[in-house]
Amino acid sequence: MITIEQLISQIEQRQPVLNKAELSPEQRRLSLEGIGNLTTANCRQLSFLSNPHYLSSLTNTHAGAVLITEEHHNEAPNDTVALIVAVPYLAYASVSQLFARQYSVSGIHPTAVIADSAIIGNHVTIGAFCVIGEQVQIGDRCVLEAHVVVEDNTTIGTDGVIKPQVVIGHDCVVGHHVRLYAGVSIGSEGFGFAPTSNPSVTGWERIAQLGRVLIGNHVRIGSHTCIDRGAIDDTVIGNHVIIDNLVQVAHNVRIGDGTAIAAHTGIAGSTSIGKRCIIGGAVGITGHIDITDDVTLSAMTMVTKSITTAGSYSSGTAAMPTANWRRAAVRFRQLGRN
Amino acid sequence: MITIEQLISQIEQRQPVLNKAELSPEQRRLSLEGIGNLTTANCRQLSFLSNPHYLSSLTNTHAGAVLITEEHHNEAPNDTVALIVAVPYLAYASVSQLFARQYSVSGIHPTAVIADSAIIGNHVTIGAFCVIGEQVQIGDRCVLEAHVVVEDNTTIGTDGVIKPQVVIGHDCVVGHHVRLYAGVSIGSEGFGFAPTSNPSVTGWERIAQLGRVLIGNHVRIGSHTCIDRGAIDDTVIGNHVIIDNLVQVAHNVRIGDGTAIAAHTGIAGSTSIGKRCIIGGAVGITGHIDITDDVTLSAMTMVTKSITTAGSYSSGTAAMPTANWRRAAVRFRQLGRN
Amino acid sequence: MITIEQLISQIEQRQPVLNKAELSPEQRRLSLEGIGNLTTANCRQLSFLSNPHYLSSLTNTHAGAVLITEEHHNEAPNDTVALIVAVPYLAYASVSQLFARQYSVSGIHPTAVIADSAIIGNHVTIGAFCVIGEQVQIGDRCVLEAHVVVEDNTTIGTDGVIKPQVVIGHDCVVGHHVRLYAGVSIGSEGFGFAPTSNPSVTGWERIAQLGRVLIGNHVRIGSHTCIDRGAIDDTVIGNHVIIDNLVQVAHNVRIGDGTAIAAHTGIAGSTSIGKRCIIGGAVGITGHIDITDDVTLSAMTMVTKSITTAGSYSSGTAAMPTANWRRAAVRFRQLGRN
Repeated sequence: MITIEQLISQIEQRQPVLNKAELSPEQRRLSLEGIGNLTTANCRQLSFLSNPHYLSSLTNTHAGAVLITEEHHNEAPNDTVALIVAVPYLAYASVSQLFARQYSVSGIHPTAVIADSAIIGNHVTIGAFCVIGEQVQIGDRCVLEAHVVVEDNTTIGTDGVIKPQVVIGHDCVVGHHVRLYAGVSIGSEGFGFAPTSNPSVTGWERIAQLGRVLIGNHVRIGSHTCIDRGAIDDTVIGNHVIIDNLVQVAHNVRIGDGTAIAAHTGIAGSTSIGKRCIIGGAVGITGHIDITDDVTLSAMTMVTKSITTAGSYSSGTAAMPTANWRRAAVRFRQLGRN
Repeated sequence: MITIEQLISQIEQRQPVLNKAELSPEQRRLSLEGIGNLTTANCRQLSFLSNPHYLSSLTNTHAGAVLITEEHHNEAPNDTVALIVAVPYLAYASVSQLFARQYSVSGIHPTAVIADSAIIGNHVTIGAFCVIGEQVQIGDRCVLEAHVVVEDNTTIGTDGVIKPQVVIGHDCVVGHHVRLYAGVSIGSEGFGFAPTSNPSVTGWERIAQLGRVLIGNHVRIGSHTCIDRGAIDDTVIGNHVIIDNLVQVAHNVRIGDGTAIAAHTGIAGSTSIGKRCIIGGAVGITGHIDITDDVTLSAMTMVTKSITTAGSYSSGTAAMPTANWRRAAVRFRQLGRN
Repeated sequence: MITIEQLISQIEQRQPVLNKAELSPEQRRLSLEGIGNLTTANCRQLSFLSNPHYLSSLTNTHAGAVLITEEHHNEAPNDTVALIVAVPYLAYASVSQLFARQYSVSGIHPTAVIADSAIIGNHVTIGAFCVIGEQVQIGDRCVLEAHVVVEDNTTIGTDGVIKPQVVIGHDCVVGHHVRLYAGVSIGSEGFGFAPTSNPSVTGWERIAQLGRVLIGNHVRIGSHTCIDRGAIDDTVIGNHVIIDNLVQVAHNVRIGDGTAIAAHTGIAGSTSIGKRCIIGGAVGITGHIDITDDVTLSAMTMVTKSITTAGSYSSGTAAMPTANWRRAAVRFRQLGRN
């Protein structure tokens, strides 16, 4: 149960609650147990209006409290506590964290295998069957859930949340306040091979990957995303980078601060992505190129050259009835004739 | 070893065996040890003819028994037992399950960590190093193989098969007869963030995902597929949905009954997919749209808008020699000029 | 620390060091501790010149030794040991392996659960919480790191390296010198279903997958890649095949010797890929087709038909400013009109 008072305190870490002086003590003590949409929230739930499209839902909401801009303040029902902020969606994000289920385990599970030389911070949780290697350092207040593997000589900052079955390879550096979801693979060996150049062998000589993965602070990486270690230099993920599920980040990629990457995107080796980029799902970015700051790539875009100017880029063609598509694809093919 | 008698019993859960009355007691007692193609099957194996293209293989088959339609009945060799059905491919599917290797372990492995408050049904198998959280319920006859993690308060119906290293997050609901393959991630946190809107911070405010994942009955989910929990409401997978490997199902997606989804497909947040859709591999579907029932999407299709009419849709261009493709791609680019 | 003498010995497993007779005993005894780029390497590091584009970096390098062709031999600084080879990049690959961190654990971890009937070779390492099934055979000198699951009756050759949380299903055969990275899924059940053909049931009949996965020698498979078992026959990966992360190889696919496959590629069921193919990232290859030997597919290519002639193939369109792309996409759509 979270009181309005607690909500305000949390919201104000990001933005002021503009009408807080006008709230009564009773309103401040009101306690809520969850978040709902305007149409479905009940009197024990909080809701919010971030898109004026849903204004009609506001007037009929049964939510116990709403996050709202000054502009729409008067449209909330009288018995709903209105908290006025400049950006209700941001306020919703801030308070959502108060309602999240807390991890029920704490301390070091007796089944965890932890090397003697590992240094474990204060108030750290390590779940069942974790394996922590030699010289690993884990910062204060980290939570590692079940089946996490951290290989030798890797450092993790404070306040990390590492969900089950994450693997972090040796010699990597993970910053503070990092969240790694189930099955993330950090520091796996990059895909580097030299052809053997012996015509009698159809083979490849493996290039052992000697670099590391360096991950900044406040980074979030989704389930089954892979971030490979560098060949000679390091793979580098900046601060405040957020990455969705099933993303491939190849060896020696560099990603600038604040960039967001949606699911299924792949970034080939040695490519550099700027700051504050927004990369849609299933985008493919070739290797050894540079994407400048503040670039938006729509979903499924294929990037084959460096992008030196900020802005929005796209490629591909959108769904059409298959019969029409067959004709269009034939004509596209004809465009390629001499 | 499976007898013809057992095959008939299994097939008839889906369709009648039309000539069963004509089989001799010796034929019914014939026992088989596997399934083979018409050209390679031996006399201890079953085969089938589902595509008339392979009719010539039927006449020369050495299979001990064949599944076949009435139409081709007379073309099977005399010493092969012919089982006549309307749909041989369906009969093959039904009986294939009889020949599958049975899981060799049963009972609760002593290394599994199971919360005292978890409720485990009858005849449940829980493999080595599983971790079962508080208030979890696992239905009768479920098999959880090694390294499965089920977080607090999640319910799994009866007759589930959960392969190694599946993670099911807290508060989820999984139906009956569900199969989850190695590395599936259910209920990981959806990719929801609000920009912090403070120009001095290039950051994101995390939106804690408070919804659940609800999975129906007879659902099948392939290796390393990710199904994220909803932000406020739930992510919902209907009954009889089948999903291949490495698929991304984002928060608040809804998938209708009987829909099939091939590998590498991604479905962005809050999109709704209808019933009985057939979605090819590596399809990308944008967020916040609706795909109606009975839609087929060919592989690698990009869907950017709702589809309101049943039928088949496609996009993209198919492989051509790279030199020709370069010219076609340049001309496509020119199409975009004013 | 690795001496020049040791480097020469390693390089010469692939190609001669042309000037080794001219090196002094002091030069041969020089020991190095790592590899660096020409511009950043210090006197305790090795570097290499594989691309003449970086020739100017060679003349100023501080590297202790360089791998170099005869042609550029005279441009190295006098106090840098030059090792002359025909293919410096291959020599770099060969010696990189000497500088890789060695796995710090050896022997069978006491927490591993190993069936009594499993046959474990000599000098095998099995990490914490591994689960090894009945009749499994593991060859000499294999290293299985933490949380590896090998199901019943599977055979792994000698000198394998299997990173954490790999799952290898029952009855598979893995060759010698195979490397499987974190989270690889081998032998999961292929995606095979028959429609139930009962109009009242919107369902699917599962086809139990009775084939195996057969993996050759010197194969490398990246993190979270999935290789499903065959339906009746086997899925087959040839020798010297190298596969990146997050790749989908469906049931009954066959991949020829020496083929390389980049991340996020998907190969649908029963397709056959030739020898020495180079398949870029996020390529999609439809099912039941044949790709001949020596085919190159550029990233994100969609292959819908068999390819019978060696060469390079591509498809798709490359990124352009979104406003232009919208016009081009509309005109592509118009190409599909009658």
